[in-house]
Amino acid sequence: MLNELEILKTLLGSLEQNSGVAVGPGDDCAVLDFAGGKLLAAVDQLIGDVHYFSNGTSPRRAGAKLMKRNLSDIAAMGGIPRWALLSVAVANGREAEWILEFCRGAADAGMKYDVAIVGGDIAALKNPGETASLSILGEMPHGETVLLRSGAKAGEGIYVTGRFGNSLATEHHLDFEPRLREGRFLASNHWASAALDVSDGLLLDAARLAAASGVAMRIDPGRVPRREGASLAAALGDGEDYELLFTVPPERAPELEKTWPDGFAPLTRIGEVMAGSGEVVAPDGADLLKDRVIGYEH
Amino acid sequence: MLNELEILKTLLGSLEQNSGVAVGPGDDCAVLDFAGGKLLAAVDQLIGDVHYFSNGTSPRRAGAKLMKRNLSDIAAMGGIPRWALLSVAVANGREAEWILEFCRGAADAGMKYDVAIVGGDIAALKNPGETASLSILGEMPHGETVLLRSGAKAGEGIYVTGRFGNSLATEHHLDFEPRLREGRFLASNHWASAALDVSDGLLLDAARLAAASGVAMRIDPGRVPRREGASLAAALGDGEDYELLFTVPPERAPELEKTWPDGFAPLTRIGEVMAGSGEVVAPDGADLLKDRVIGYEH
Repeated sequence: MLNELEILKTLLGSLEQNSGVAVGPGDDCAVLDFAGGKLLAAVDQLIGDVHYFSNGTSPRRAGAKLMKRNLSDIAAMGGIPRWALLSVAVANGREAEWILEFCRGAADAGMKYDVAIVGGDIAALKNPGETASLSILGEMPHGETVLLRSGAKAGEGIYVTGRFGNSLATEHHLDFEPRLREGRFLASNHWASAALDVSDGLLLDAARLAAASGVAMRIDPGRVPRREGASLAAALGDGEDYELLFTVPPERAPELEKTWPDGFAPLTRIGEVMAGSGEVVAPDGADLLKDRVIGYEH
Repeated sequence: MLNELEILKTLLGSLEQNSGVAVGPGDDCAVLDFAGGKLLAAVDQLIGDVHYFSNGTSPRRAGAKLMKRNLSDIAAMGGIPRWALLSVAVANGREAEWILEFCRGAADAGMKYDVAIVGGDIAALKNPGETASLSILGEMPHGETVLLRSGAKAGEGIYVTGRFGNSLATEHHLDFEPRLREGRFLASNHWASAALDVSDGLLLDAARLAAASGVAMRIDPGRVPRREGASLAAALGDGEDYELLFTVPPERAPELEKTWPDGFAPLTRIGEVMAGSGEVVAPDGADLLKDRVIGYEH
C-alpha cells in the first residue's frame, strides 16, 4: 500500500527552491514574490473511487469538489483565490460529456468566488478510471500577513470553524463550502497567528501545525464540535472536514469571540497551545496521537 | 475513441474569465495581470503508455519530459519560467522510489532553468497506470510583449527552430530541450509577431496559429528541416517536436537571419503569411491540411 503522505513529505522536503519563494512546499500553499505582490499557489488531485464514488457521484459534483479542495488551501492562508489550471484524464471509452460536466462543475464552483479556470488539459488513460488535478493561484493583499502553519506560540487559544467527522456519510465531503470568508477575516484583522485547513483528520492536522510551529497542542476532545452522526473518534480522526484550525494570541481571543460575524461557520475554542515539539495531548496529558485513530490518508 | 482536442476546444471556449486575465485559455499560456506584472500560467499532463512507454522509460526521464513540455509552453510566449506545481497518481502497488525518481527528474529538468517545484501532491489510483500533471508559472519582463498565436500578419516570414518528425524513434520526445533561450531572444528583441510551440505536428500547429491570427500560412514542405530518419509526411505530421514556429515582419527578417546566435537551435524560413482564414497551403496553392497527415493527437 502506497504511503502517500510519507512519500510527499520526503519529496517536498527535498525540492530545491529558488529566489522568489517566500514559503516553499509544506504549507497549504506556497507563497511566491511576484512583481512586488504575494502570489499563493497550491495543487491538489481528485481520483475516481478514491475521493468520490465514480458510480454514485455526478461529474459536476466531483469537479466542484476538486475546485473547493483547492479553495480551502487558499482559505487556510487567509488569501483571495484568483485563477485555476485544470487537467483531467479519463479512460478512453468515457463520453466527452462526462469530462465537460466535470469541468463545468469545477468552473462553477470557482466562479462563485470569482475564480476563473485559465488553462486546461484533457488526456485519455490506457486503463479504467478518472483522475484530475487542479492548481490554484491566489493573492495576499499588500500589507497583510499570510497565515502559516508555523506561527503558533505557547499560550495561544486553539480554534476551529464548523464541525467534524462523518464527512462521507453526510456528503459533507462533496457539499462543503471552503472557509474563504473566515480565512480572510482572520488574516485581514490579524486575529490568527497560525492556521491550516483540516482535511486529513483533526488530530493529524493539529499535529502538523504543532510540528511546524515547534509547540504542543492541548485539545479537549469533549469540546470538538461534531457533525451529525459523528462519534468522538470520527470527529477527531475522519478526514475531509475542510474546516480551519487556527491559533489566536490570548489578549486577542475574547475580542475575536465577540466580533465573529453572524453567518460565518461557527467558531469553537477547542484548546490551548503549549510549549512542546509536535505533541497533541488531552487536558489530562494523555497523548491523543497514540491513543486514537489519527487521521485518514487520501 | 476520446477526441481530446475537440473536448478541450469546447471546454476552453466556454470557460468564464475574470478581471486580471489578459489572455485566457487557448494560447500556449494564459497571461495574468498580477501586482502590475505579467504572470504566465499553463498546465500539461503526462500519461504512462500514452506519452512514454512505461516499461522502457526511466521515471526520471519521464518526469523530465513533463517539466520540459511545460517549459516549452513558456518558451512559446517568450517568457521566463519561474515555478511549477506537480501532481502524480500511480497504481497502489507501485514503489515509492518510482514516484520519487519521477519527481526528481522533473525537479532537475526545472532547476536547469532555475525553475523550482513549489508544491506537489501524490495519490494512489484504483487501477494500473501512471498519470502526472504539472502547472508552470512564468514571468514576462516589464515592458516586453508576450508572443501570442494571434499576432501574425500577411506578408510576414514563417520561421521554425530545429528539425521535425520521427520524434518517437529518435527519442527526441524525451531528450528535447525547450527553446527557452530562443523564445526569450525573439520576445526581448521584438523579432516575432506571433509564436507557438509545435507539439501536435507542424501543419496542425501552423493551422492553429493561422486561425488565431486570421491569416493563411503558405509553407514549402521542401524547406521543412527534417530530423534524422523523418519522411516528409513525418516532418509535417508527427507530433512531439517541441520546436518554435513564429512569424517575423518582412522588414525585420533579414536582420534576424543575420543576428541569430550561434549555439541556438537552427533557424529556418519555411514560408510566408498570406491573407486568409486558417488555411495552410503549399506554394502551388494545394491545401496541405487536406492532403496530408495533419497531426498527431496525444
